[in-house]
Amino acid sequence: MNKGLLIVLSGPSGVGKGTVCAALRRKMPGLVYSVSATTRAPRSGEQEGVNYFFKTREQFQDMIARDALLEHAEYVGNYYGTPREFVEKTLAEGKDIILEIEVQGALKVKEKFPEGVFVFLLPPSLGELKQRIVGRGTESQDKIDHRLSVAVEEMNLLSRYDYAVVNDEIESACERIQAIITAEHCKRERFLHELFDELKSLTTAHNGSER
Amino acid sequence: MNKGLLIVLSGPSGVGKGTVCAALRRKMPGLVYSVSATTRAPRSGEQEGVNYFFKTREQFQDMIARDALLEHAEYVGNYYGTPREFVEKTLAEGKDIILEIEVQGALKVKEKFPEGVFVFLLPPSLGELKQRIVGRGTESQDKIDHRLSVAVEEMNLLSRYDYAVVNDEIESACERIQAIITAEHCKRERFLHELFDELKSLTTAHNGSER
Repeated sequence: MNKGLLIVLSGPSGVGKGTVCAALRRKMPGLVYSVSATTRAPRSGEQEGVNYFFKTREQFQDMIARDALLEHAEYVGNYYGTPREFVEKTLAEGKDIILEIEVQGALKVKEKFPEGVFVFLLPPSLGELKQRIVGRGTESQDKIDHRLSVAVEEMNLLSRYDYAVVNDEIESACERIQAIITAEHCKRERFLHELFDELKSLTTAHNGSER
Repeated sequence: MNKGLLIVLSGPSGVGKGTVCAALRRKMPGLVYSVSATTRAPRSGEQEGVNYFFKTREQFQDMIARDALLEHAEYVGNYYGTPREFVEKTLAEGKDIILEIEVQGALKVKEKFPEGVFVFLLPPSLGELKQRIVGRGTESQDKIDHRLSVAVEEMNLLSRYDYAVVNDEIESACERIQAIITAEHCKRERFLHELFDELKSLTTAHNGSER
């Protein structure tokens, strides 16, 4: 059996990763979602193992020590990370798994899973990205400038990804990600093994019956 | 403007390249078809520039001498080849072009267009391929054996292609090739140029307005 594909969906803050990922999961019920581990408290309605794996700080640090996380980061005093075992188990079962993650985390995952399929979600234009960043609320210009410069830095990481998908419309972005998944399954490597086995058996059978 | 994609559809004899290519062209009217040049006489209903570019032997040899063909081969006393100029012109116009060709010719095209997208069409199984080869008519066992060994050799070239598509059903094979084309358009290289131009202009505008 072929291993599944690890699809990593990333992109600058505010580009709509979460929305696209949720829409994609609705369209592809067979696609497994990689649930993150976190030390932050569950919010109302959040379920263990569905939204997050909720961990104590000690449990999380133990996971770091055991190299049980593909990547982790601290954000506003809480840890967030990607449990390695669930990803590996899903792939070994021949199922595709999607990981929605910010750009720095995605590149850490790439170090451990270079064979992953790394998709960078782009805003329809940088002007539009700025609009989304500026239009969020009533923050100070300094905060907005900071968010913009972070987004520009993130955009510079694009070259390390395999694919870029413009999030002009959720439906269309989903279709392009589905096409990428289909195409990756067609990559020759995934077929060679089975084919050569069949080739061998056919040649033997053929020689046996004809000579 | 981005250059178009050169899609090369190939695969073992009898796998159904022509049928899949024709179906794909019906589904994707914007996809340009690379018309071959040949020295064989037109058959009833065949049109110049639609089915083939019909050439005299002298004209064809002149094309070879001018390196005006991406590949060429002689088959049953007639020349067949792929005119380079039409392919290059179409790509420069930003249009995708598909080339349906046997496996040796495809690999010659790859030498000149390594950036092409090389798709290998596979039979549902090698047993099925054998069925198609054997089931064709009333030829001698020797001829059948020869066809089978050619097909097996062709199959061995699979690793030099970018994608493998199983021709289990025409509709489904077409969908997978369409997905490959979409995914190839999402490859990061095709976006970088435009994006960095926009990034530069935004940074300038931003700095100008804020400072």
